[in-house]
Amino acid sequence: MRSSATSYPEGSAAFPHRGLVGIAGLAPHEIMFLLDEAEQWVDLNRHAQKHRDLLSGLTIINAFFENSTRTLLSFEIAGKRLGADVVNMHAATSSVKKGETLLDTAATLNAMHADAIVIRHASSGAVQLIGDKVDCPVLNAGDGQHEHPTQALLDALTIRHAKRAFNGLRVVICGDILHSRVARSNILSLSSLGADIRVCAPPALMPVGIEAMNVAPFHNFDAAIAGADVVMMLRLQNERMQGDFIPSPREYRHLYGLTLDRLSLASPDALVMHPGPMNRGIEIDSNVADMVERSLITLQVEMGVAIRMACLDVLTRRARGVEGWA
Amino acid sequence: MRSSATSYPEGSAAFPHRGLVGIAGLAPHEIMFLLDEAEQWVDLNRHAQKHRDLLSGLTIINAFFENSTRTLLSFEIAGKRLGADVVNMHAATSSVKKGETLLDTAATLNAMHADAIVIRHASSGAVQLIGDKVDCPVLNAGDGQHEHPTQALLDALTIRHAKRAFNGLRVVICGDILHSRVARSNILSLSSLGADIRVCAPPALMPVGIEAMNVAPFHNFDAAIAGADVVMMLRLQNERMQGDFIPSPREYRHLYGLTLDRLSLASPDALVMHPGPMNRGIEIDSNVADMVERSLITLQVEMGVAIRMACLDVLTRRARGVEGWA
Amino acid sequence: MRSSATSYPEGSAAFPHRGLVGIAGLAPHEIMFLLDEAEQWVDLNRHAQKHRDLLSGLTIINAFFENSTRTLLSFEIAGKRLGADVVNMHAATSSVKKGETLLDTAATLNAMHADAIVIRHASSGAVQLIGDKVDCPVLNAGDGQHEHPTQALLDALTIRHAKRAFNGLRVVICGDILHSRVARSNILSLSSLGADIRVCAPPALMPVGIEAMNVAPFHNFDAAIAGADVVMMLRLQNERMQGDFIPSPREYRHLYGLTLDRLSLASPDALVMHPGPMNRGIEIDSNVADMVERSLITLQVEMGVAIRMACLDVLTRRARGVEGWA
Repeated sequence: MRSSATSYPEGSAAFPHRGLVGIAGLAPHEIMFLLDEAEQWVDLNRHAQKHRDLLSGLTIINAFFENSTRTLLSFEIAGKRLGADVVNMHAATSSVKKGETLLDTAATLNAMHADAIVIRHASSGAVQLIGDKVDCPVLNAGDGQHEHPTQALLDALTIRHAKRAFNGLRVVICGDILHSRVARSNILSLSSLGADIRVCAPPALMPVGIEAMNVAPFHNFDAAIAGADVVMMLRLQNERMQGDFIPSPREYRHLYGLTLDRLSLASPDALVMHPGPMNRGIEIDSNVADMVERSLITLQVEMGVAIRMACLDVLTRRARGVEGWA
Repeated sequence: MRSSATSYPEGSAAFPHRGLVGIAGLAPHEIMFLLDEAEQWVDLNRHAQKHRDLLSGLTIINAFFENSTRTLLSFEIAGKRLGADVVNMHAATSSVKKGETLLDTAATLNAMHADAIVIRHASSGAVQLIGDKVDCPVLNAGDGQHEHPTQALLDALTIRHAKRAFNGLRVVICGDILHSRVARSNILSLSSLGADIRVCAPPALMPVGIEAMNVAPFHNFDAAIAGADVVMMLRLQNERMQGDFIPSPREYRHLYGLTLDRLSLASPDALVMHPGPMNRGIEIDSNVADMVERSLITLQVEMGVAIRMACLDVLTRRARGVEGWA
Repeated sequence: MRSSATSYPEGSAAFPHRGLVGIAGLAPHEIMFLLDEAEQWVDLNRHAQKHRDLLSGLTIINAFFENSTRTLLSFEIAGKRLGADVVNMHAATSSVKKGETLLDTAATLNAMHADAIVIRHASSGAVQLIGDKVDCPVLNAGDGQHEHPTQALLDALTIRHAKRAFNGLRVVICGDILHSRVARSNILSLSSLGADIRVCAPPALMPVGIEAMNVAPFHNFDAAIAGADVVMMLRLQNERMQGDFIPSPREYRHLYGLTLDRLSLASPDALVMHPGPMNRGIEIDSNVADMVERSLITLQVEMGVAIRMACLDVLTRRARGVEGWA
């Protein structure tokens, strides 16, 4: 299933975008190109010597306006393994707290000559806003309820490693579809790659008009999961558990949690995914999350570092004057 | 205007100081030497490959006892681009919270064999106190209401890049002169370089006896700005907006904000500066801050990284055994 | 007293352990092996050029679930000086706050292909729990009231640098023995190396049955300190000062503080140690802490970086395929 793209004969035509703000706007072959590029980093990361000086001399700024552990760690490790000078800007100690506008912060990072800026922000559209203001590529590490493109890419890479073709793959995404940037980016990505997508959520957490995204909506998880090849669970955010959207965590698990019983309704070799961090016993049961043969949850984390290395490499090729990309 | 100091024939005579605690005590030619040294880093930072292994093997500790984003980022990037091992010590997680004395913290950083310590602290004099206790150079990244010397140096470098001689340059500094370490360091620096300095502040925010610093004090901004070549605005700290020092932010803008109208009273090609982060609509209007030809605000940020690289390089030459400096 | 272990003829037999969870389980010659290994780093760290690319290509994650300044800085500097890619995971911004289980966090760090994980955690046993779950070595940077093995190793290295044989060395450890992981690890280490250990604490802060650890318990500090060669003071944690365990800080100093008068009861050249940060005027007086000839407190900090470099080096030898260790 993997194409043999170790060199890039087409040069920048293979990925003509300046940054990675979302999956929206990416052609299927561009998504596949990033997945192909990530393979070399999957391999490298499995060795003791896992450092390449490819981005040596470049400065990467991780500007996280929203707290994050795993995504920040993943990007930081990716940048450092590629030899870049990596610095983190934490919102908690940032000028943002002093009332500086987002665009002034962007201008500041730009003036320091960042070669790539990785941004997480609580507001949808914030990353595009910064991207329009700076000279270097921006990578969206999650913006509000908009997109989380590297999550969708790592999920696609994970599915590909589990050796399934995307075409006709039956994927069900279950949880808070309404507020989830992970769901949104995955719908765009997997749909573009040819998967057959069902989304399942309580009525209050299902976006109106979701059918327009080429997915089939369900409120009944048992019906949605029937025959699925991949079951992708979403994290139930703590702020949704207060009773405005769901009656109680216990009730949520009863209706929308992935239990062993429920998983048995899916395809016999259905795979289980979760972007983490998990609420065990709420949206997913421990005996499902820990199934060695079926759960891809730690593989997702591993693929995350590789795909971020690929994105940082590809997006800085023009600035580094890589042949065919300059 | 730039001298040709790419080598340093005089060796350590060019900058005989052990650390950089303040502008006070620096001779004009020493300030110019640091500006000259920074030019190579201005150039380097404008390339994709912006890393030099000059400080390889050295450990730089950024000990920030007060929150900061841009200054910390700037120093961190500067140290990493020069190849040093850079570590940040954040006050929020520091032993200081456990009641350790400042001198014990200093002794600890010293015992870890830091080669340079960059310090920001809320108390005036704290940096000198630490500098007296440790074996390596200290760099003041802002101490209380005392000094912020790298800010003054980057401001001087910015002015020089805008191609004006310092001698006879008419500079007006407007804002909370009383509490501002930025104002203090800039007065010392620009005055030493031959500029003609006016300071402007509300009566409650003007230090008594400021004339002794060789500046002309004004309470009326319209009068102060008349004919100015450079207008340097200070950030109005949030804690001053509570009514003890100024009646209201709105009133402050009316009397001391830099508006287009007010700027028209200055020299026709007057330049605008601000150390950031800006309170747009309070001490500076957006249509002034964003004037492409006149606002130097992002250039200041750019010069900041270069000047900090120069300071780190120069101050560690003795320890690195650079010829003429050992 | 130092053995000549610059090479390791016996290979992994010299230190056959996968990680460093505690001093418990280490043979005396294994402790001495780590001390011997640290000597090269003590030397290196005293030079300007203090970087070696020994761990180049490896990723070290400092996972600190409990705040720390000096231990985190020490490990971070150690890892960076050895050329590893070092990333810090701070609890304050971590998924742990989102309710993720410790084992899920461990699985995440493991999936990112860490080559060593340094862990501090408020719960005794947390480090072992993570160590059992991950593929790489874990290093305990302090877990609850269990152990803090690198502290004990740096203390032993410090004592050795002060040129005293461990055998028969009279050590008194004074303070909150009950809750102290520093005390526990030091008792195990120094007792294993042949020292004669007394522990001194108020009755409420002395563990029941401490005699089983091969130490002599005292409640009277004057009696305990008599003739001691080394006086090791423990930090009085702020939360113990509230009156549940001790009547008042002032009373504590009176009974258990190390004053000049009290030190005069020890051996005439008795050495003073403290793991820091110190509460000056409570468990130790300033005129004792600052005795140039007798206080080893800053030497302890210096030895800390060296011992951590040794531990990171030794524990990653297998993964790096070092001859005799693979």
